[in-house]
This record gives sequence, structure tokens and C-alpha cells, in this order.
Amino acid sequence: MNPPTLITLTTDFGTAGYYVGAMRGVLLSLHPEARLVDITHEVTPYSVLEASWVLSEACPRFPEDTVHLAVVDPGVGGRRKPLIVRSQGHWFVGPDNGLFTPFLEDEASVYRIRDAVALPNSSATFHGRDLFAPAAARLARGEPVLDLAEPVAQAMRLHLPRPRRDGRQVVGQVLYADRFGNLVTNIHRDNLKPEEPWEVLVGAYRIARVARTYQDGSLGESLALFGSSGFLELAVVEGDAAAQLGVGRGERVRVRAPRG
Amino acid sequence: MNPPTLITLTTDFGTAGYYVGAMRGVLLSLHPEARLVDITHEVTPYSVLEASWVLSEACPRFPEDTVHLAVVDPGVGGRRKPLIVRSQGHWFVGPDNGLFTPFLEDEASVYRIRDAVALPNSSATFHGRDLFAPAAARLARGEPVLDLAEPVAQAMRLHLPRPRRDGRQVVGQVLYADRFGNLVTNIHRDNLKPEEPWEVLVGAYRIARVARTYQDGSLGESLALFGSSGFLELAVVEGDAAAQLGVGRGERVRVRAPRG
Amino acid sequence: MNPPTLITLTTDFGTAGYYVGAMRGVLLSLHPEARLVDITHEVTPYSVLEASWVLSEACPRFPEDTVHLAVVDPGVGGRRKPLIVRSQGHWFVGPDNGLFTPFLEDEASVYRIRDAVALPNSSATFHGRDLFAPAAARLARGEPVLDLAEPVAQAMRLHLPRPRRDGRQVVGQVLYADRFGNLVTNIHRDNLKPEEPWEVLVGAYRIARVARTYQDGSLGESLALFGSSGFLELAVVEGDAAAQLGVGRGERVRVRAPRG
Repeated sequence: MNPPTLITLTTDFGTAGYYVGAMRGVLLSLHPEARLVDITHEVTPYSVLEASWVLSEACPRFPEDTVHLAVVDPGVGGRRKPLIVRSQGHWFVGPDNGLFTPFLEDEASVYRIRDAVALPNSSATFHGRDLFAPAAARLARGEPVLDLAEPVAQAMRLHLPRPRRDGRQVVGQVLYADRFGNLVTNIHRDNLKPEEPWEVLVGAYRIARVARTYQDGSLGESLALFGSSGFLELAVVEGDAAAQLGVGRGERVRVRAPRG
Repeated sequence: MNPPTLITLTTDFGTAGYYVGAMRGVLLSLHPEARLVDITHEVTPYSVLEASWVLSEACPRFPEDTVHLAVVDPGVGGRRKPLIVRSQGHWFVGPDNGLFTPFLEDEASVYRIRDAVALPNSSATFHGRDLFAPAAARLARGEPVLDLAEPVAQAMRLHLPRPRRDGRQVVGQVLYADRFGNLVTNIHRDNLKPEEPWEVLVGAYRIARVARTYQDGSLGESLALFGSSGFLELAVVEGDAAAQLGVGRGERVRVRAPRG
Repeated sequence: MNPPTLITLTTDFGTAGYYVGAMRGVLLSLHPEARLVDITHEVTPYSVLEASWVLSEACPRFPEDTVHLAVVDPGVGGRRKPLIVRSQGHWFVGPDNGLFTPFLEDEASVYRIRDAVALPNSSATFHGRDLFAPAAARLARGEPVLDLAEPVAQAMRLHLPRPRRDGRQVVGQVLYADRFGNLVTNIHRDNLKPEEPWEVLVGAYRIARVARTYQDGSLGESLALFGSSGFLELAVVEGDAAAQLGVGRGERVRVRAPRG
């Protein structure tokens, strides 16, 4: 168990200014051998839902015993609990606001971080630096979780928007537009079995083709495909679906057997 | 003193293009065991003042003997000196243009980097790669500073905008808007003692409430609070103060005892 | 040969979302001691040409045996080959679409990655995570290239836009505008010898002065200079040449002896 002193970082702080740098400094001061790896600092500000989705896709790819420090924390300094969660062989450190919903299955253990873990002169507004970073560093350094936190019964869970079946169609929504303009929906491959062939309706558009790759059509053509995480995506061949279809986060997406 | 081969990076290069990558390559070629940690590469282009503020908040959080490489260098290739500064147990490497003002107290030692430290075929326009990165790598590798640089009497200092007292009020300015739209001012908690209660005037707005956290009000309400570095901030509960108040860097901020 | 377990990352994924985080997780799961270094994730989406230029400037700065993982891959899941290239003492891993053109000189060895290297349940749309990251991790871990890939005769090369001589002038183009608005052209110092003095024509502008540094003129003045990679750049003293000259990527640039 030598190398896994990995700490991943996920925040909505952005990479300008000193916030992420100060957090990294605290981590490395308390644990000089720690190896810091960014997942992202570009979560939409305050979007706990987006962050929980990013964590669900990225964290399981890391080695066991990785410590995942995640700070999207609109309620910082208020009554929400500071948490450590142990789930699926990984550690999660961050606020109790639903961030860790994807990892809160039955076998997860949940702990509330003790106040004494905070840095001296801790602020009320930057727990990422003053409380969560110290907890993550000490956990990664091998301190027993019970020295840092006490068990609690449960953690907050987000109500994740799930697709619903409505007669012959499945209705979901756009979760996220990536940098290419690909529109990732919450409709999973498993939600559609065994319905194929099907067509997709979004905004004013109807997409009849089900593709396998982003190139599986002519330049500028709209496609629907199952992306790399198994969710339905809308894309445009070498184009930007979000811009071309005029569609963004939250837009309704319907999948149905073609008429006729 | 084994692990502290840490080198932090702070620049205004942005993260697109090859500039930061080339600098990292030079650092790792000269010191393969170096551990590189970004503070930020998103300093506003040419803003030595902003960079010096970011450094003042982030660098002290790192372990002693960390080497802080900072390149915001509008005068590259001109007459400004290339510096190494030793202060507060840390090393700083970068141009002599005021960047290191927060670390130039009396006990700081200042050195001018020798020309011979530059890479062969050094450019006149990219000293971050060709001169400062080699100096930082060799310092982190343990070479004596006097092999790399010669002592000089002093370094350039910025005239930092400081708040002033004007009768019953303290007048400062907005230093920075962070990613959340929080407006960080140059008015420190210590500038206001023992003046409370007080009110804040900025642009066309008057903020009467002094809050403890960003949630300490109703949704969309404007707040003033002392941020995580002790400076007064203007914020909007789960909103963007910069946008909502129409205020940006340099805007005057007044704090005074409420009338009445 | 202990420390060089360096893996650099170059993509057009951006740093939002989970793409880069998932790729890092796969790399570290397969090779926990790997040291990941970003070149950039901000390549213009799908721009293989820009990425190949970034790689040509950044990769040679790294130590020998560094593994450079580069994924700008509009043809993912299609017929383009997945490659490992050995050139100039470095390793390159990514799609066969011209990305590695700068490293495909005569002595380069080219290999096609075997399908068996892909992760189980590999997607058709995210080979960065599912195929290239495993190949890079295993190469950096010391696995023989022939265990991962088989030799092939050649790799795709980009047709790089080269400057041409047209009578008394050299005609090139703008390759890239950096964060400062400096316009980097494809006209190299070597293309102009022994032509000096010369003047530069771009858009509606004529730049008569040849400068040595970005400060070599008065505030707001337009300059031409040879940048840190030897290519002609157009800049404005402490200003933004792209904005001020109204010029962007692809714009024609002419250099000629001044009329006399």
C-alpha cells in the first residue's frame, strides 16, 4: 500500500485566483508525499448535481484507497455537516449536500469530520482549505478515520433526475453539454432495451439515426449515440450540437419507436 | 528534507498553447524528481499586482523550502533583473517587477540570477522557459543559491493600493472578482476595528448587513463579509455580486458607521 | 532510468467535466507510480494541426523516454489506426491522424496498438480513456512496445502550411493567437535570411519595425519579432495584437524588403 497516497480534487473554484493553490498548499504541508490529481475545478458554480455526476464518472477509474476531495459547497459555514464517506474501496471528503449521492449505497460508511481537524483560525467561508483539505491530507497519510471523524447514520442524497417511461416513449433530459457541444442526457442504454429501432425528439428536431461514433454520418449531420458512459448523447458530426440544435442543460429529450 | 522538491507555478500564460508545457518540460529535464504544482496560470495578462496578491495568499500555505516560480513579466527581455528571493523560509524565482512585494520584508534576501543559468540559445521573449525555469529547477535540486545568483541590495516593490481613513469612513477598492462573482476588496478586518456596526457603500448600492457566511441571508440578497483571507468581500447569496451590482476591479468601496 | 515514468497529456477535451479526470484515473490505476504532466487540454476542438504544433514545441523539452499521450481525435471509433510512435528518444501515443507529423522523420518507428490493449467494455467514442491511456500507462511502466503494438510501415502526415517565396517577398500565415493576443506565424527566422531589413504586411497594416522584445517600442505600438520558437510574431506593446489588428488564425502575412 505504498503509492496510493493519491488525492483527487474536484471543485467549482475555477483555476484563476488563489483558491486551488492555497488548498494544494495545505494538502502538501500536512502530507508532503501526497500526489495531487485534478478531476476538475470547472464545475458550474454551486452545481452539486453536476459535480456528483462528474465524480460518479471519474472516481471509480482511480486506484483503491484514493482520497477524493470534492468541494462544491454553497452552504459553507452553515449547518451542513462536513463528511468523510467510505464506499467502493475509495474515500470521499467534502460537504454533506448530496455531492456523494452516487456512492451512498448500502455498504457505504459515513462519518462527520470533527471540528478539531480544522486549521487554527479556520475561516467560515473556505472549508475547502481550512477543514476538508486537512481531513483529506490526514486520511491519505494513513490516520485512522475514527481519529478524524465520528460515524453518523446517513448523508444527504440528491434527487437525481431520472428518465420516465410514458406510454411508448422514454422521456429524459439533457444533463450536460461538453466542450464539443455534445449533449449528454440522463437516458441510459439500459433504459431503452429492447426498444430499438427508435428515434429521438429534442427541441424542434427529430433525429432518426442511431450512430456508433461521432463520425458516423456526413459532416454537420445530427446524430444520437450512446456515449462513453452508456448515456444517450446528441451530437453533430464535427460540429457543435448544443449550438446547432439550440439546446442546453435541462432540455427535454424523448426517445420513441418510430411511427409508421 | 527529502520530499520538499516542490516547485509551484504562477503565470499569466493561460493553459492553452505550449507555453506552460514547455516550461514544465524544462523543469523536469533539469530536475526529474521535481514535483510541479500549479497555483494558477490565469493571472490577468500583465497584471503584476494581481499575481502578487495571489502569491501572498497561496505561497505561505506550502511547506518550507518550496520553490515558487512566478512569471508575469511584461518587461521580458528588457532591463528588469531576473531574481531569486529568499523569504519566510520559501524561495521565489521570477522577474524584478514587484511580483514579490508581499515577501520583501526586512529579512528577505534578494539575488540576481546569473546570465549563465539561461538555457543555450535562450530567447529574448520567453524567460519563463529559458531562464527562470532553469533557475528554479536547479534551486529545487539543491544547488546553492550563490552558484546561481549574486546578492543584490533590493528588489522592486509595488505600490499596493491601501485603504485610507477619511473622517468617519474607510475607503478602499475592489481588488478582484472571483469565479462566483464575489468582490474581494483591499479592506482588511484589521482596518475596521473597532468600528462595528458599519454599512458598506459601493456603486449605487448600500449594504447594511454584515454576514458571517455566503448563505447568511435570503436568496439573492447582497452581503458584506470578511472572506477567508480576512478581507472584506461583497457577495450575493447564491448569486453573482459582480454582475448584480455592476461592479468590477478598481471600484471604490466605502465602509462607515451607519447614520443615525 | 528510475524517475522517467513521466506521461504528458495533450487533448482538446477542456478541463470541465469528467473526461480528463477519467483518463488520469485509468493511467494511475494501471501505473500507480506514473507522474502525469499536462501540456494542455485546451487545443481548439478537433484541431489536429494546432495540437501537432503544440507537441512540436513542448515535447522535446521533456526528458528522454517520456511518454506523450495526445488525444485530438475527431475520427474516434472509425478506421484511423491507434498508434505508438518512437522518435527522438520519446514515446508518442495517440490516433493516426497527423498529430505526430513533427516527429515522423526517417528514424521514427511506428506501431499500431493491438485491440487487446483496450479496457474491457471499451467504448467506441472515448479511446483516450479506453485505449490510449492503457497503452501509455503500460509503456511508461516498462512493457516492451512489441507486447502492446505491432510495427507498421507509416503514419499519416499533415500537410503543414509552409511559407512560400513570391518574388521579393515571403508569404505565410497566422498559425495561432496566444492569450496575450500575440499572433504567431509560420514564417521562421530561417525563411528570411539574409533578407533584412524587411517590413511586414498583414490585413490593412504595415509594420516597419523589427523588434527584439515585446517592450521594444512605445505603448500600443505594433511590432514584429521572432518569438521564442524562432517564428515571426506580430505583437502590440502591452496590448493585444489579435484584437488591435483585427487578425486571426489563417490570415495571410507578407514579409518583404521595404520599398525604397
